Amino acid sequence: MKAGALAEALGLTLSGDSGADINALAPLDRAATGELSFVTDARHKAAMLGSRAGLLIVPESLAADCPVDHLVSPAPYVSYAKASWLLIPEDAAPPGIHPTAHIAPTAELGANVSIGAFVSVGEKARIGDESRIGDGCRIEVGVEVGAGSRLFANVVLGRRVVIGRECRLQPGVVIGGEGFGYAPSSQGWNAIHQTGGVMLGDRVHVGANTTIDAGAMDPTVVEDGVIIDNLIQLGHNVFIGENTAVASCTAIAGSTRIGKNCLIGGACSILGHITIADGVTITGTTFVSRSIEEKGTYGSGIPMQPSPEWRRTFAAITRLNELLRRVRRLEKAVANEGS
Amino acid sequence: MKAGALAEALGLTLSGDSGADINALAPLDRAATGELSFVTDARHKAAMLGSRAGLLIVPESLAADCPVDHLVSPAPYVSYAKASWLLIPEDAAPPGIHPTAHIAPTAELGANVSIGAFVSVGEKARIGDESRIGDGCRIEVGVEVGAGSRLFANVVLGRRVVIGRECRLQPGVVIGGEGFGYAPSSQGWNAIHQTGGVMLGDRVHVGANTTIDAGAMDPTVVEDGVIIDNLIQLGHNVFIGENTAVASCTAIAGSTRIGKNCLIGGACSILGHITIADGVTITGTTFVSRSIEEKGTYGSGIPMQPSPEWRRTFAAITRLNELLRRVRRLEKAVANEGS
Amino acid sequence: MKAGALAEALGLTLSGDSGADINALAPLDRAATGELSFVTDARHKAAMLGSRAGLLIVPESLAADCPVDHLVSPAPYVSYAKASWLLIPEDAAPPGIHPTAHIAPTAELGANVSIGAFVSVGEKARIGDESRIGDGCRIEVGVEVGAGSRLFANVVLGRRVVIGRECRLQPGVVIGGEGFGYAPSSQGWNAIHQTGGVMLGDRVHVGANTTIDAGAMDPTVVEDGVIIDNLIQLGHNVFIGENTAVASCTAIAGSTRIGKNCLIGGACSILGHITIADGVTITGTTFVSRSIEEKGTYGSGIPMQPSPEWRRTFAAITRLNELLRRVRRLEKAVANEGS
Repeated sequence: MKAGALAEALGLTLSGDSGADINALAPLDRAATGELSFVTDARHKAAMLGSRAGLLIVPESLAADCPVDHLVSPAPYVSYAKASWLLIPEDAAPPGIHPTAHIAPTAELGANVSIGAFVSVGEKARIGDESRIGDGCRIEVGVEVGAGSRLFANVVLGRRVVIGRECRLQPGVVIGGEGFGYAPSSQGWNAIHQTGGVMLGDRVHVGANTTIDAGAMDPTVVEDGVIIDNLIQLGHNVFIGENTAVASCTAIAGSTRIGKNCLIGGACSILGHITIADGVTITGTTFVSRSIEEKGTYGSGIPMQPSPEWRRTFAAITRLNELLRRVRRLEKAVANEGS
Repeated sequence: MKAGALAEALGLTLSGDSGADINALAPLDRAATGELSFVTDARHKAAMLGSRAGLLIVPESLAADCPVDHLVSPAPYVSYAKASWLLIPEDAAPPGIHPTAHIAPTAELGANVSIGAFVSVGEKARIGDESRIGDGCRIEVGVEVGAGSRLFANVVLGRRVVIGRECRLQPGVVIGGEGFGYAPSSQGWNAIHQTGGVMLGDRVHVGANTTIDAGAMDPTVVEDGVIIDNLIQLGHNVFIGENTAVASCTAIAGSTRIGKNCLIGGACSILGHITIADGVTITGTTFVSRSIEEKGTYGSGIPMQPSPEWRRTFAAITRLNELLRRVRRLEKAVANEGS
Repeated sequence: MKAGALAEALGLTLSGDSGADINALAPLDRAATGELSFVTDARHKAAMLGSRAGLLIVPESLAADCPVDHLVSPAPYVSYAKASWLLIPEDAAPPGIHPTAHIAPTAELGANVSIGAFVSVGEKARIGDESRIGDGCRIEVGVEVGAGSRLFANVVLGRRVVIGRECRLQPGVVIGGEGFGYAPSSQGWNAIHQTGGVMLGDRVHVGANTTIDAGAMDPTVVEDGVIIDNLIQLGHNVFIGENTAVASCTAIAGSTRIGKNCLIGGACSILGHITIADGVTITGTTFVSRSIEEKGTYGSGIPMQPSPEWRRTFAAITRLNELLRRVRRLEKAVANEGS
C-alpha cells in the first residue's frame, strides 16, 4: 500500500513521500523501510528519534521532531489499529455455502453469506448479510446472527441465541448452553429448564472457548461493543453493559449485572446476584464478593513471594487474631502502668 | 397447558380454575395471567400477596393467604423445576440418524436414538435407547453412552469412556482426554499412557467446555446425580461422590476424592491426592490445600477492597512477621517494667 | 508381551523369567501376576517387599531385596512411562484420508498421514509424515503440522500456526485465535489485527480445551518439550521455554516470557509483560505479579480454613493497618516510660 493511500484511508495528513510502499507492521524499535509503527506520547520520544520506520503514526505534539515520514493523528494507537487491517487485510471469506454444510430448509441466509464446511444451521435460523460462519459451527434452530458477524471454527450457538451485527466469535465459543439452575431435593438435583436464551449486541467480541449460558426465564445479555477474552464464563442472566472489557479466565456468576465501560482483569471471580457500577476497574485475580456502587479501582490479588517467606507470612496471617489479643493485653498493661 | 393438567402431572392439589391456560414461567414480581411462578417460604409472603400470577406453587403454610390460583407443594421449588419442563418442553430430537453422520459398522445404536449431523461414532461404541447425540459430537471406539442421555453439539468422548443413563453434556465438553501424567528425566518429560478411562454415573450433568481427563490405570469416576458447571477441570483419577455440585471454573487436580452431597463453589482450586468428606461446602475461590475430614463449610477467598486500601492492607500483610517481632519486644519490655 | 521382550525394548536387565507374560499396568500395592509396576526409591521399600507383581521396575539400590521378577533401571519411573506405551499400545490410526474429510487441493499431506472424519484442511496447509488428525479438526489455510504429531478430535488451528514434530494436542484445543489487543477510543474498542501467529516446537503437549492466542506482530512461541495441561490460556506473544510444565487452569497474560524447565502449578495467574527465569517453580493458585529473576519456588496461595475461622482471620486482615498504628503507639508509650 502506498503511504498516500493509507493516509487517505485513515483520514490523516501525511508528512513525507506519498508514493512510499508500506506493507508491514513492526514495533517502534525494529520498524524499518516499508514498515509502519506508531508513537502514542512523549514517553516514547527517544525511541521515535532513533526510529528508522518507513512510516510512523505520531501525535501532533511530536510531529515536529519526527525524523521519518509520518502521519499525524489525534489518537495514534487507534489509527494504528485501523491501519493494521488495511495493511494486512483479513483473509477473504470463501464465497457462498460449502457443499458439505447442512442448512435446514427454513433457515434464512442473507446476501453474500459465507458458510464453511460441515456447518449445521437449524430450522428458522437467520444469518445476516455478509456474515461468515466458520467450519464446524453449530447454529441451532431459530438462532439469529446479525449482518457482518464472523464466527470462527467450531462455535456453538444454542437455542434462543441472538447475536448482533459485526460480532466476532473465536473458535470453540459456546453461547446458549443451559444455565446451572437446580432445585435441590432429598432425591438429588432437579434441573430448571433454562428458556431465556442469550442476546449479544453489536460489535461484541468473544474469545476462544469462552462460554455464555442461556438465562433461566430472561436472556443473558451482553451489550454493544463489549470485548470478552478466552476461557471466560458468564453464568445465566448475567448482564454486561456496553464497551466493558473482560480479560481471560474470569468467571461471572449468574444474575450479576456489570455496568458500562468497566475493565475486568483476568482470572477474576465475580459472585452472582450483585451489581457493579459503570466505569469500575477490577484488577486481575480479584474476588468480587459484593456489589460495587462507586466508580473506581478494586482489587484483592495476593502478589507472589518466595515460598519460604510466603509460608512464614501465611503462618502469621493465621495467628492474626491471637496477635490482636496480645496487642489488646499490652494496651491494657501500658494504660495501667501509665495511670 | 391447562392448570388442571399441570396439577395432575405434578401430583399437586389445585386451588382455582382447572381450565385456566398456563403457558409461561415468570419471576414472582412479574408473573401475570397465563404465567406460573412459585413461593418457597414466608420471606416471600409480601410478594405473594401482591402477585397477579396466573398460577403459583406455594408451600402449605402460605396456601391460605395466597390471593391467586395456586398449587400446594411440599417443595415448591422442586415442583417449579418439574413444571418448567412441562410448560416449555425440551426441543424435540430429530428422528433417527442424520445422513451426514459417520457411524462405524460395529457400533450399536439403541432404539429411538437421535444422531445429529457430522457426528462420528467409533467401532464397538454403544449408544443407549432414546439417547440423543448433537451435531459434531465425537464418540470414540468402544465408548458407551447410557439410555436417555443427551450430548449437545461438539462434545468429545475419548477412549474408555462410559457415560451412564440420563446424563446431559453441554456443548464442547471433553471427556477422556489424556491425563497429565509424566515422568521427568534430564531429556524432558516422558508421558505415561493414561489407560484408565472415565466413568460417569447416571443423571450426571456436565457444563460447556468442561474437561474430565482419563485416569492413569483406574478410571476417573463421577457418581450418580453429580452436577458440574462450565469450564471445570477434573484431573485424572478424580472421584466425585453422588449428588455433589461443582460450580464453574473450579479445578480439581489428579487423584483427589470428593465425597457425596458436597457443594463446591466457583473458581476453587483443589489440590491433588487429597480427600474431602461427604457433605462439605467449599465457598467460591477457595484453595483446598489439604484433606477435609469433617463436614462443614471451608473457605479462603479474599473479598475485594478499593485498590488503594487493598495495597495498604497487602503491604501490612508482608510486614506481619516484623509486626510479630515488635509485639514480642513490647511484651518483654512491659513484663520487665512490671517486675 | 513377554518379560524378556519388554526388558529388551526398554534396554534394561531382567532378573527373572523372560518368558513370563506381562500384559497390564497396576499400582504397586495391587499389582499381581501378569502386571507391571515400579518402585522409585527406598521410601517404597516396604511396599516392594510385600509386592506380588508379575514384574517390577526397581532402582539398582533396591534390586537385591526385590522379592519378585524385576528390571533394574537408573530411572524406574521413566522406564515405567516407556513401558506403559509398550504394554498397552496407542490405538492404531485409521489409515489414510477419511472420505468425509475436506482437503483443499493445494494442501500437502505427508506419507502415512491419517485424517479423520469431517476434518477441514485449508489451502497450502502442510501435514507432516505419520501425523494424525482427529475427527472434526480445523486446519486453516497455510498451517503447518510437523511429522508424527497427533491432534485429537475437534482441535482448531488458526492462520499462521506452525506445530512442530511429535506434538500431541488434546480435544478442543484452539491455537491461533485472535489475541486480545484493542486500542480504546471514546467510540469503543478498536481491534488490532493479530498477524503474528503461533509457533509450537517439537514434542509439545497441549491439554483439552486449552487456548493459545496468535501474537500481534510476532508469533506466540512454545518451545520444544513443553507440556501444558487442560483449560490453560496463553495470551498473545507469550513465550514458554523448553521443557517447562504448566498445570491446568493457569492463565498467562500477553507478552510474558517464561524460562526453560519451569514448573507452573495449577490455577496460577501470571501478569502480562513480565519475565520468569529458567528453573522457577510456581506453586498452585499463585498470582505472579512481577518478574522473577532468580531460580527458586514462589507462591501466594491462601490455604483454606473452616469458614468461621477464616472470616475472623480475614476481618483481622482488614484491620492490619489499624493494628500497626496501635503497636506504634505502644512502642512510643513504652519508650517514654522507659526513659
